[in-house]
Amino acid sequence: MKDKILELLEQRRYSEIAAAMKDMNPADAAALLEELPDQSKPLVFRLFPKELAAEAFAYMDGDSQEVLIQGFTDKELDEVMSQMFLDDTVDLIEEMPANVVKKILRHVDEDTRKMINQVLNYPKDSAGSLMTMEYVDLKGSMTVEQAFDHIRATGVDSETVYTCYVTDSRRKLEGIVTVRELLLSPKTEILRNIMETNVKFVRTHTDQEEAARILSKYDFLAVPVVDAEERLVGIVTVDDAMDVMQEEATEDMERMAAMAPSDKPYMKVSVFENWKKRAPWLLFLMISATFTGSIITHFEAALAANLVLSSFIPMLMSTGGNTGSQASTTVIRSLSLGEIRYRDIPRILLKECGTAILCGVTLAVVNFAKLMLIDRVSIMVALVVCLTILVVALVANLVGCLMPMLAKRLGFDPTVMASPLISTILDAVSLIIYFNIAVAVLNI
Amino acid sequence: MKDKILELLEQRRYSEIAAAMKDMNPADAAALLEELPDQSKPLVFRLFPKELAAEAFAYMDGDSQEVLIQGFTDKELDEVMSQMFLDDTVDLIEEMPANVVKKILRHVDEDTRKMINQVLNYPKDSAGSLMTMEYVDLKGSMTVEQAFDHIRATGVDSETVYTCYVTDSRRKLEGIVTVRELLLSPKTEILRNIMETNVKFVRTHTDQEEAARILSKYDFLAVPVVDAEERLVGIVTVDDAMDVMQEEATEDMERMAAMAPSDKPYMKVSVFENWKKRAPWLLFLMISATFTGSIITHFEAALAANLVLSSFIPMLMSTGGNTGSQASTTVIRSLSLGEIRYRDIPRILLKECGTAILCGVTLAVVNFAKLMLIDRVSIMVALVVCLTILVVALVANLVGCLMPMLAKRLGFDPTVMASPLISTILDAVSLIIYFNIAVAVLNI
Repeated sequence: MKDKILELLEQRRYSEIAAAMKDMNPADAAALLEELPDQSKPLVFRLFPKELAAEAFAYMDGDSQEVLIQGFTDKELDEVMSQMFLDDTVDLIEEMPANVVKKILRHVDEDTRKMINQVLNYPKDSAGSLMTMEYVDLKGSMTVEQAFDHIRATGVDSETVYTCYVTDSRRKLEGIVTVRELLLSPKTEILRNIMETNVKFVRTHTDQEEAARILSKYDFLAVPVVDAEERLVGIVTVDDAMDVMQEEATEDMERMAAMAPSDKPYMKVSVFENWKKRAPWLLFLMISATFTGSIITHFEAALAANLVLSSFIPMLMSTGGNTGSQASTTVIRSLSLGEIRYRDIPRILLKECGTAILCGVTLAVVNFAKLMLIDRVSIMVALVVCLTILVVALVANLVGCLMPMLAKRLGFDPTVMASPLISTILDAVSLIIYFNIAVAVLNI
Repeated sequence: MKDKILELLEQRRYSEIAAAMKDMNPADAAALLEELPDQSKPLVFRLFPKELAAEAFAYMDGDSQEVLIQGFTDKELDEVMSQMFLDDTVDLIEEMPANVVKKILRHVDEDTRKMINQVLNYPKDSAGSLMTMEYVDLKGSMTVEQAFDHIRATGVDSETVYTCYVTDSRRKLEGIVTVRELLLSPKTEILRNIMETNVKFVRTHTDQEEAARILSKYDFLAVPVVDAEERLVGIVTVDDAMDVMQEEATEDMERMAAMAPSDKPYMKVSVFENWKKRAPWLLFLMISATFTGSIITHFEAALAANLVLSSFIPMLMSTGGNTGSQASTTVIRSLSLGEIRYRDIPRILLKECGTAILCGVTLAVVNFAKLMLIDRVSIMVALVVCLTILVVALVANLVGCLMPMLAKRLGFDPTVMASPLISTILDAVSLIIYFNIAVAVLNI
């Protein structure tokens, strides 16, 4: 598609481009435009049908949006801004440089500007910063028929019409009613009689991940957001919740691989940004690992007395690290899905102990066979190695499951306690266990 | 809440339990019931209002569902089954043991049984196995008013009424129309004139993750599923897509920590299941790590000649492993979000090379300073260590980003190439690089 458009552009067959774009989905149109060279973007954008242009604009990445805005006439900017939903406008303003923001703000009306400022004031990653203020607002005294009239009159500017919110005169949330229920009720029914009053809501300062979790748990299409006085101020819709879930999972994975998270797609991250994300953790882990090295130095005499011992170092370190990262990953993910709570700690410890013993015995038995049959080491050395595996498995599982919960309790993100840090800690712990057992058993 | 219910149960104050449950959300009611002891579940379930009972049943975990079904009278089972959506029924059947499945199938009508069999035949993790067959089916010749009448008549049994599907006489999908568009159109308008004909759809065999990605990309509430003849057979709704995304992210994280994925929440997984998930990978990685050990043995002479060299082994191994897992995690996540394609490989390699050089130089410089000022080793040893870091960083980044893409190309899940395996490979590679540089530079 991109190549075809580029060819048509070169041959100045603009009407054919317009024809090709006519029935395109906004998300696809945005993706296509992003791939074109910057200087062609404004031209192709002007060939989009008007409605598609405004919709596609909201789907584009920041770089393309900036190129387009820089080239927009006042009229074009007016058209795009009047079509955009508030939450998309806020996203746009957060990403643009100051001079573009100024230009944008000249083209939104006073009310919108006030709402934008309000949303911008909510903390990053809160439900308030994610919500949209464009929802359908009904009164409990309306009939079903009046509700439909109201939806028809105001729905075009609402992000979703399918869940409607019933508020009192002070904008306090009284209940919700879905279009499905409206459709299935008699036209003369009063909303107060059919609305759901046991409403799940979040507060403006609720973490956006929590809002997404509620949407997912209750299979909602939107969840209302209320302020400190329990007045309805906005809604978080399911499409934004899905994006939040994806972003949070990506962030968790990045932190679990010892990187500072970023919210840009990979191909948009520069080498320098990559460096900034990765180098600090690498440095920190490298310095931590030198302590592991000094443990080896400390036991140099024991190693020199029994040279074969040093060949098991990588295997024991890796077993400790792997066991620990299995436990920590499991606990981190369960914490983030809300599957476990602090009061489950005793049961978790018991479960991890059991798993550790089963896994430890399996590894020790296989190792013992290998040490005796293939490596043909002395039985005492084999015992030292296998005993170490058992103890390491137990310690690694307990450290792996306790550290993320401890981190969370202390107010840190539990993901910092994922594989790389846990592995580094357990490398050192495994070696200390190993050398102490060796010194004790072998009398060296 | 749980304690209150248990207390009321003990005092046989059943009507108070019923009153407390009356306005509960189905998802909350299900969570509450799951926490009660098995013998109280049927009793409390019977105290739920009828509609809530049926809805809550679909939200419960398999164990609780089984306990309830075992105790259901025929009439109760009929009531619950008639209320359940087809996709929930299929999930139920997939989880229950054979005797319970038999009991369930006696209580669904012939048509439903046929549909269940059809869905059960689609491959696990396909859109076909995830979809529901209960959607609103309209004809292009209908007016908006007729469409609303049709929705009112059939909507109660549909999982979503908000996106309606226009099909021809052979059930081929012609277009979609949303209730929002219907509400905003004149009542006499013909659907053919307002429906969206450029419809995104998936096939029954499309991977469920791909279906979820399409829903998320286009902000859909549902995506249609068509069979090989392009006839509409079902829809995948956004709530199921969200669950799929969560599950897939969890699976990816588990595989990235060297565990076989499971689809049960942590607290439901037994110690034995944990062992089955974790031990095979631990064994495999342990055996791989013994090769790393044999590399150390192989270079024993060099190590003996210069004892200080062995103290840098953990640091170099960990740097290689951490760098590699940063690159592999980034690439794996980008692959799974569809952000990168094979044709991006040259650009990815370039980016990772640049990142590796920046990170490598940073680590080498810090290390050089530490080696000279704190450890006070000879300048030649410091050079060996720092040169190794540079080479290891470069190799680790390239291996880390290439292996997941190679795995995917060969038809494997790219996540197997995540941290633990990549680290184990890179441990060995780092040591080989280290010892070769040491032998060459120090002439040992």
